Amino acid sequence: MSKQELEVIGQDAACCPEVSAAPLDERRAAELAKVFKALGDPVRLRLLSMIASRRGGEVCVCEMTPAFDLSQPTISHHLKLLRQAGLVDCERRGTWVYYWALPDVLDQLAAFLSTRQTAAATVGATA
Amino acid sequence: MSKQELEVIGQDAACCPEVSAAPLDERRAAELAKVFKALGDPVRLRLLSMIASRRGGEVCVCEMTPAFDLSQPTISHHLKLLRQAGLVDCERRGTWVYYWALPDVLDQLAAFLSTRQTAAATVGATA
Repeated sequence: MSKQELEVIGQDAACCPEVSAAPLDERRAAELAKVFKALGDPVRLRLLSMIASRRGGEVCVCEMTPAFDLSQPTISHHLKLLRQAGLVDCERRGTWVYYWALPDVLDQLAAFLSTRQTAAATVGATA
Repeated sequence: MSKQELEVIGQDAACCPEVSAAPLDERRAAELAKVFKALGDPVRLRLLSMIASRRGGEVCVCEMTPAFDLSQPTISHHLKLLRQAGLVDCERRGTWVYYWALPDVLDQLAAFLSTRQTAAATVGATA
């Protein structure tokens, strides 16, 4: 699948200060909300964790489908939403599509949510 | 508002290994998905950042409403969803309700999403 097929939402996540640093502007809030919405579903969270926890590698869609009581088109739809959010990428090889996690977006979201950096900066500024 | 009024979703978030450590089980995926769903809306993300970035303090609902082109009941509904997710808490004093952030749940979500700890552990294990 080409990059052009999908708008990758998570690409600009690096731009955002952490949630406890400053009020978000509307544009950044809209970008981040799309990524969090992609995470706001238990099937997608389970798929993402199956992909992200695969050490050094990829997961075939054929390995993921049996873990769910859902059709393969439904699983593929959930995987497409994770891909649109910039959380995973994939490649078709022969019959199957293989997925891998994109840790940068996960780490950007983690940095956005963490209050620890802001707390440390505040302590530093007032010390 | 009493604790009993609302089911606080985020309380068990500490239980979960990070997304890149192991596949999530169904129960944990359902719990976390509810919190991410609460974050999956631009108005709620902006409200949360307004509350979380207020240094050492609380934000009156009366200060937040003017930043949005939405009615106060709509803003209050979004704030209730943030509170149900365990991301903020509030107290009514006289006419107004005052909100503050609960950094523990934000930090638990950050730890869940971060791939850095897992990567460090993997390097440590294979060194």
